[in-house]
Amino acid sequence: MSTEAPEITKQLLTPPRVRRAWYILCRSDELGKAPIPRTLFGDPIVLFRDAEGTAGALVDRCPHRSVPLSGGDVVQGTLRCPYHGWRFAPDGACVHIPALIGLSDRAVHAATAYPVRERQGYIWCWADPTSPPQTEPWSFRLSSEPGYTVVQREVRAQATIHAVAENALDVPHTAFLHGGLFRNDADRQPIQCVVQRYADHVECEYVGESRPEGIVGRLLSPSGGVVTHFDRFYLPSIVEVEYRIGDENHILVNAALTPADDFDTVLHAVVAVRTRVPGWLLRPLVMPFALRIFGQDAKILAQQTEIMHRFEEQRFVSTELDLLGPHILKLLQRAERDDLGDLQRPPTRREITMLV
Amino acid sequence: MSTEAPEITKQLLTPPRVRRAWYILCRSDELGKAPIPRTLFGDPIVLFRDAEGTAGALVDRCPHRSVPLSGGDVVQGTLRCPYHGWRFAPDGACVHIPALIGLSDRAVHAATAYPVRERQGYIWCWADPTSPPQTEPWSFRLSSEPGYTVVQREVRAQATIHAVAENALDVPHTAFLHGGLFRNDADRQPIQCVVQRYADHVECEYVGESRPEGIVGRLLSPSGGVVTHFDRFYLPSIVEVEYRIGDENHILVNAALTPADDFDTVLHAVVAVRTRVPGWLLRPLVMPFALRIFGQDAKILAQQTEIMHRFEEQRFVSTELDLLGPHILKLLQRAERDDLGDLQRPPTRREITMLV
Amino acid sequence: MSTEAPEITKQLLTPPRVRRAWYILCRSDELGKAPIPRTLFGDPIVLFRDAEGTAGALVDRCPHRSVPLSGGDVVQGTLRCPYHGWRFAPDGACVHIPALIGLSDRAVHAATAYPVRERQGYIWCWADPTSPPQTEPWSFRLSSEPGYTVVQREVRAQATIHAVAENALDVPHTAFLHGGLFRNDADRQPIQCVVQRYADHVECEYVGESRPEGIVGRLLSPSGGVVTHFDRFYLPSIVEVEYRIGDENHILVNAALTPADDFDTVLHAVVAVRTRVPGWLLRPLVMPFALRIFGQDAKILAQQTEIMHRFEEQRFVSTELDLLGPHILKLLQRAERDDLGDLQRPPTRREITMLV
Repeated sequence: MSTEAPEITKQLLTPPRVRRAWYILCRSDELGKAPIPRTLFGDPIVLFRDAEGTAGALVDRCPHRSVPLSGGDVVQGTLRCPYHGWRFAPDGACVHIPALIGLSDRAVHAATAYPVRERQGYIWCWADPTSPPQTEPWSFRLSSEPGYTVVQREVRAQATIHAVAENALDVPHTAFLHGGLFRNDADRQPIQCVVQRYADHVECEYVGESRPEGIVGRLLSPSGGVVTHFDRFYLPSIVEVEYRIGDENHILVNAALTPADDFDTVLHAVVAVRTRVPGWLLRPLVMPFALRIFGQDAKILAQQTEIMHRFEEQRFVSTELDLLGPHILKLLQRAERDDLGDLQRPPTRREITMLV
Repeated sequence: MSTEAPEITKQLLTPPRVRRAWYILCRSDELGKAPIPRTLFGDPIVLFRDAEGTAGALVDRCPHRSVPLSGGDVVQGTLRCPYHGWRFAPDGACVHIPALIGLSDRAVHAATAYPVRERQGYIWCWADPTSPPQTEPWSFRLSSEPGYTVVQREVRAQATIHAVAENALDVPHTAFLHGGLFRNDADRQPIQCVVQRYADHVECEYVGESRPEGIVGRLLSPSGGVVTHFDRFYLPSIVEVEYRIGDENHILVNAALTPADDFDTVLHAVVAVRTRVPGWLLRPLVMPFALRIFGQDAKILAQQTEIMHRFEEQRFVSTELDLLGPHILKLLQRAERDDLGDLQRPPTRREITMLV
Repeated sequence: MSTEAPEITKQLLTPPRVRRAWYILCRSDELGKAPIPRTLFGDPIVLFRDAEGTAGALVDRCPHRSVPLSGGDVVQGTLRCPYHGWRFAPDGACVHIPALIGLSDRAVHAATAYPVRERQGYIWCWADPTSPPQTEPWSFRLSSEPGYTVVQREVRAQATIHAVAENALDVPHTAFLHGGLFRNDADRQPIQCVVQRYADHVECEYVGESRPEGIVGRLLSPSGGVVTHFDRFYLPSIVEVEYRIGDENHILVNAALTPADDFDTVLHAVVAVRTRVPGWLLRPLVMPFALRIFGQDAKILAQQTEIMHRFEEQRFVSTELDLLGPHILKLLQRAERDDLGDLQRPPTRREITMLV
């Protein structure tokens, strides 16, 4: 048994905050003519579009009298405060103060702006307004490949990024929490799990897994076949589950997690599927199952958060079966300290046998 | 541009508390035979009347077993605790303990009493029970002058005394927050604003203002005329808005603010109006507008408070248009420190041009 | 006047916690096949029965991923976590981890167990899982004596153990809070109260008390008679009220208090009554009164707690009439420090005259 993964992780209720990173604040189609409010690590942010349609993100507090700018409106491409009518450009500049003779060009009147990118139908925000972006947002794979059905969906859990990412990539809980829907607790077979941790991501390959049991499995792969299954986490908050079943089925669940607050995580999922089942049939058949599974996960994660607050600590005891969770926490803690080391270094590798 | 008014005021969430001062706790007609509970700076107070009808105010906690005295009743002019029946006089003395042989005349059994005055239909409380009053309560002007229609009204906002007073005396927000009702954002004209700050109050005179636009203006002054307009703040918590429109119209909005808690302010307004519109007509026409305006103010003030708590600071950036707010804060801070200096000293004076 | 009882007790909002003691968590008939959650001093506990029906109590947090075990189920006499299916024995041992090859026998995977006893229809828990029990749970007297009608009932108050125990044993408040139902404020007679404080309990005997006034008295003792009345408190949390009215009536109200949280106390009452009124008649006649009285107590106790939090202190000023409350607090404080001294030492004795 490897001892590389920490066995007990115990920390106060201050989960790591990776601020120098991009997070999705909303879908592109959610931001129209009216400003909308969001939060990131609990900080209120207002999103709006200027006259050209370019999205801007400001701290959701008018510098003048501290009212939320998201309660205002957009006038000539500027965001107008509802209290005194001050107007702001996407870069935060205060471009108009009614009743004032002359223009304000003074920095002290400006709102704080966050860097913004709009990509693949999502609006991303760089979470540290005091430092320029050092990277670009994550690109979702396969989302515009021919032959793939793509479903986008948001779900939300009252839990940390770490807890949501671990849950999303955790295999052993599926037989219990989602018992009957997905896997079940009887007739378990050993499979090999190969975990490789890189400087900025961690990956697990499951070798020898048979076609998933239950209704979902029968729907996705009527013919059966060899299964390839990868679970991956990329800093700061990307989870990826990739299945190939035979040659014909390919499922990539790719999700970007947004820390609306320390214990409030929004999961923006982009699911790309290539399968024998046609897309128009896949959606109504699979979505109810997926939403039910996520509902069960969100409920148990909220209970976990409640217990953590009750005991005023996050105390997790891991076994070798907790393949990715402890690694994810370590990666987040290092990223928070800006201490990832050499990104090109070779991965550490670990093999585990699990009964699935 | 004068720089006398501070440009940025930033403070923790502990607004100034001027305790050596009188505040209204209720209208006289609200206090009948039953005791009623109120708070001042968050401290629970119980009001009751003794056998002669004299109002008393005690800390709303029985010294014996810490239950609220306001849950009790008044017996023979004494306030009786609902738990064991201890009775208290308006000065806090414990005058009866049932089951005890003999009388209690011991200070340790007494409730803490606040000084009380009843004036002009209001019951005032001196907010520091440990020091005797050094002044008398504010007298509302014109409230019994012949020819004036007087309206009394209470409104409440989840905001500090400072924020409510600034809002009540602030001109520039009216064109936005109350757009269409009162002023509007088009066709602005320059007016002169003369601000004079005294040791214990601050006043702004608006020179060259035209008759208010909109429905309210047309109702109050059908014939038009020269406008005289003063906004005033008196320590600790009096706001006054005075309009004269021609010779025939005189409006004095006089209000005393009560800090029920740091972020919960009750505004007791006494509005005295002399105008060509008869009183019986004025009330139904003007009240709906006044209440709608105040509703908009209360909503934005509550949002301001929420943002201040979210960011754990009160951070206001002012321009020269913030004529009175920064002065009000300074006055409150000095009064809290009991550091007003020579009350007779001449005022500082400042002139600003504003587009209204 | 004796001065032995402390006159003013003032403490921060951290009531004494006597952890090395047994408390009732539920009635035996409340615990069936499903696990149930309870709290003790605010700590979540899960109760369940193993295959033999023996009750177990564990900290209600799975050591693995901090979800509440009470959300799980009981399988083959083990408590199974709903998240990953870990199973626990009543002693906390982790007896199964699905997907893991081999058994876990490692202490780090165990849940923390509380000692448990099941007696007289109640499940008791020793509140300190880190120390073995030094005593056995309280035995309710008379609960199975022939000729006695026994009623069990739970009530709950948002107040400390100390406040609930004092209230339950306090005579002077009954004439006020329960005025008309039980005693009243007119025609008071002096009675002698003899208080004896032992190392681990305190008792008051009331001498010369007449038959209770009001409806309750007339129901219980139609013929009148000499009254013997004792009020007793035993550490850590037992209150006892014992009446004899003539030779024929004997009432023992015995209750064990459970600190679900510092300010949330559950009272498990076992009332044993021998009287001329038959049991089948007694119940419907007496219960409504008892519940109404307790409702009034619970309401005033909740107000007391609210005031204590508002003022951030527990400040009680006592007179000689507060016969037992100050002693109860002292006993609890000493028990918390494990500083009861010689349990065999003779009691201190004090006599008071009270007007009842």
